[in-house]
Amino acid sequence: MRIIFSAGTWVGLIFFILLGCAGTNVQRHRGIVIHQTENAAGLMVGFPPPPDRRVSTDNWQNTPYNSWGFFNVSKFLPTTSISRGFKPTKILIRWTKNINLITFDDREGNLMSVGQMLKATHTDGFIVIIDRKIVSEQYFNGMPPAARHIIWSCSQSIIGSLVGVFVNNGQLDLNASVAEYIPELARSGFGDATLRQVLDMQVALDYSEDFNTDAAPNVRQLYRAAGFGPARTPEENSIYDFLPTIGKKGEHGVVFQYATPNTEVLGWILERVSGKSLAQLLSDRIWARLGAERDAYSVVNRVGSMSPGGGINLTLRDFARFGLMQQSNGRFNNRQIIPDTWINGIESDANKSAFKKSTAARLFPQGSYRNQWWVTGNPHRAYMAIGIYGQFLYINPKSKIVIAKMSSYPKPVNPEFTFITLKAFEAISSSLEKL
Amino acid sequence: MRIIFSAGTWVGLIFFILLGCAGTNVQRHRGIVIHQTENAAGLMVGFPPPPDRRVSTDNWQNTPYNSWGFFNVSKFLPTTSISRGFKPTKILIRWTKNINLITFDDREGNLMSVGQMLKATHTDGFIVIIDRKIVSEQYFNGMPPAARHIIWSCSQSIIGSLVGVFVNNGQLDLNASVAEYIPELARSGFGDATLRQVLDMQVALDYSEDFNTDAAPNVRQLYRAAGFGPARTPEENSIYDFLPTIGKKGEHGVVFQYATPNTEVLGWILERVSGKSLAQLLSDRIWARLGAERDAYSVVNRVGSMSPGGGINLTLRDFARFGLMQQSNGRFNNRQIIPDTWINGIESDANKSAFKKSTAARLFPQGSYRNQWWVTGNPHRAYMAIGIYGQFLYINPKSKIVIAKMSSYPKPVNPEFTFITLKAFEAISSSLEKL
Repeated sequence: MRIIFSAGTWVGLIFFILLGCAGTNVQRHRGIVIHQTENAAGLMVGFPPPPDRRVSTDNWQNTPYNSWGFFNVSKFLPTTSISRGFKPTKILIRWTKNINLITFDDREGNLMSVGQMLKATHTDGFIVIIDRKIVSEQYFNGMPPAARHIIWSCSQSIIGSLVGVFVNNGQLDLNASVAEYIPELARSGFGDATLRQVLDMQVALDYSEDFNTDAAPNVRQLYRAAGFGPARTPEENSIYDFLPTIGKKGEHGVVFQYATPNTEVLGWILERVSGKSLAQLLSDRIWARLGAERDAYSVVNRVGSMSPGGGINLTLRDFARFGLMQQSNGRFNNRQIIPDTWINGIESDANKSAFKKSTAARLFPQGSYRNQWWVTGNPHRAYMAIGIYGQFLYINPKSKIVIAKMSSYPKPVNPEFTFITLKAFEAISSSLEKL
Repeated sequence: MRIIFSAGTWVGLIFFILLGCAGTNVQRHRGIVIHQTENAAGLMVGFPPPPDRRVSTDNWQNTPYNSWGFFNVSKFLPTTSISRGFKPTKILIRWTKNINLITFDDREGNLMSVGQMLKATHTDGFIVIIDRKIVSEQYFNGMPPAARHIIWSCSQSIIGSLVGVFVNNGQLDLNASVAEYIPELARSGFGDATLRQVLDMQVALDYSEDFNTDAAPNVRQLYRAAGFGPARTPEENSIYDFLPTIGKKGEHGVVFQYATPNTEVLGWILERVSGKSLAQLLSDRIWARLGAERDAYSVVNRVGSMSPGGGINLTLRDFARFGLMQQSNGRFNNRQIIPDTWINGIESDANKSAFKKSTAARLFPQGSYRNQWWVTGNPHRAYMAIGIYGQFLYINPKSKIVIAKMSSYPKPVNPEFTFITLKAFEAISSSLEKL
C-alpha cells in the first residue's frame, strides 16, 4: 500500500482507521510489529530468484532493490566484523504504545500520522525508547529483527564518540594538527586543521559532498576509495590514497562544511595512535561493552580497513543500545563507555555561528554540529546522527527519548522525507513527554 | 622457525628441547597457547600496510598471504552470516595437557612430534578435546581465537549432517532422484541419481575435481560459480547456472567419485524443499542450537546463496563444538541437534566397495565415505571432515576425542602434509586413550 501524504487531512483520517484495523500483513510478536514478512517488491524470493527480482552488486543501492540490499550489504561487498565480544546481551524491556497514531503537521500544514510517515519515507526499521523502555519496534520490507542494516553517515557519530575515549585518555590532543598524527596528510587540506576542527567539520576543503557533482575530489570518489565500488584511478584504491589528494579552500574554523572525509581522517588517526584496526577499536571500546546482541560489521576498502564515514551495519536494537548509551551520558550496561564530559559537550559546546553560515542551517536554523553529531537546537535539545537514504538516530537527553530509523529512500537525499521524519520525531517526543 | 622434518630422528629430539623451552614468541593464557600474536610474514601491519605486505582479493589464497587471508575471508569476498542466535554460549571446560610432545613415525619412518607437525603443515589453529574437555588449544600466524577461518570442503560434512535432519523429518527421501526435487537438473548428470548417491558421492559425473586440469566442467569453474571469483562465462554466474552443465559419465552407485558439486546439489535441494536460504537453515537447525560463540559465515555467489561446498568460516572453538555434537551422537547443549541414527549410520552403513575402487582408497585403504563424511576405517573407527589447504575435523566416537585443525598450506593439496596430520591425530588419540 502506497500513501499519498500530501493530499490532505482526510487521507490521514482514513489511514487512521486502516491502521486501527491492523491489516493481515501485519504480525505482532512480544511487542515487535512486523509489517511484512517478505519484501514488498518480491525481491530475492526463490532458489534461484527470478532474474528481474535479484539484488546484486550492481543494483543493491537503487530503488526498489535497496529495500532488500540495505540489510544484506555483506552479500555484495567485502566487510569486516565489529565483534560484540562474549558478554551477555543487555536486555531491553518493553512498554509498548501505539505511537503510529501520533500526528503532526507536514510541510503543507496537512495532518500526518507517524504511521503514514513511516510508510511514506520507505522505512525498514523503526524503534522508539523512553526511559530505557522500548515503546515501539517496527520492521518493514521483510527486514528481520536480526538483520543488520547499513546506517551510512550515522557511522560518523559512532566514530565521534570513540574519539572521545581517546581524548579523555590523553591519547589525542584536540588542539594538535592532523599533520602531527598523519604526516602523509601534511600537504593536504587537512594538514594544518586541528582535531577539534575535523571533529566539528570546520575544515575548509576543496571537496564536494554533492552526489550530483562532477567536480573532483568528491563524495563519489570517496565512496569508491572506501570500498563501495571498484577503483577507477590509483587515488581511489583506498582512503589512504584518496585523502591526501583533497586540497584546502578557505580558512579552517569559520564555516561548517559537511564532508565525510573528515571522519575518514579521524579513523586513520585512531588507527595510527592505537596501532589497532578501527573495527577492533570499536569492538574493544564500545561494541563489546554495550551488551550488543549481534556483531556489527563494516564495509572495508581494498586495504582491509573499515569505512568510518559510512560503512557500519548493525541491528535496529543495537542501534538503539548505542543511542541509549549516548542518552545516558555515556553510561550503559553498568559501565561508563564514553566519557560523560564528552557527551555533555555535544550540545553545550557547539559553535552555532560556524553552522549558521552553512547551507545546513536550512535544516536546523537553531542548530549546530559537534563531535560528529548534528545538534538540532530544537526545544527538546535533541542531537542526532543522520545518514543518506534515511538513517537516523535521535537522542533527546532531556526527556530520555531515543529514536532510531533505518530506511531505503529511492534517492540518497530527500529533504521532504527528512523534514517529515524530524517533525514526527518531535511529535513523538512531545507526546511521550506527557506520559 | 621452519622445521625440516624429514632429516631424521635427531632433528626431532633437538626440537623436543626447543619446545620444552617454549620460545619467547609463545603466549599462554587460560590454557590457550598463542604461538605468535602477529602474522609471521608481517602481513597487514600498519595503516596502511606496506604494498608488498598487503593481502588482497587477488592474493588471499596464495602463500604466504593465505596465512592471514584464510581467517579474514569476509574482507575479500561477499558473505552471508550464519547466526548463532541469541542463546548463551556453551562453555567448554579445560583439562590442559602438553600434547605437542607426542611422537609418531613419519612416512620415512623418522620420529616426528605433534608440535613439529603443526608447524610443518602451516597450522593456523589446532584444538584437541577428550571427553568434552579441551586438552589443547593453539593458534599460529597471528590468528586470534575470535577469528573465523575458512574450512573449505569441511563445509560439506556440516551440510551432510543438516540433510539428516530433513531425512529424519520425512522432508527428504533418500531413494528419490535429484530431478524429483530440482527439475532443472533432470537432464544433467545428477538427474537420475538418488539423494543417497549424492550424499555418498557415488554419482558418475563428467567433471573433474583436479585443481590442475583444464577439462570442463571442473572445480575451478565451480569455484567461480560459487562466488569465489568473477564469472568468466554465463554458466559461472551461479551454481544454479553451473550445476545443470555437468553431464553423466558411467553408472551411479558403483564408484566413489569425490566431487564438490554433489554438496552444491544438496544445498539447492534443502533450499527448494524448505523455502529458506541455506544460511538460515544452518542457523535455525544447527548454529543457534550449538551454543556457538560467534556467528559463522559463508562466501556467497552472485545470487546471494551460500557455498555449501566450501564456503563456511567459523571459529576454532565453534568447529570443535560442532565436532563434539557429532561425537556425542548428535546430542549437545541439552538438545538432540542431529538424529543419532543418522550419525551412527556414518560409519556403520558405509559402502566400502565403492570406495575401494577410487583413488581415495590410497589415503584410507580401509576407508569409505558416507553422508558427506570421510570414514577412515582406522583402528579408532574415526571419521572426518577434510578441506583443501589443510582443514580437518576428526571425530573419534569410541574414545570421545575431537580434533580440529585449520591451516594455510601453500598449495590446495599436499598428500605429505595430510599423511603426517592423520598420523599425528592417531598418535594423539592413542596417547589420550590411555589417560
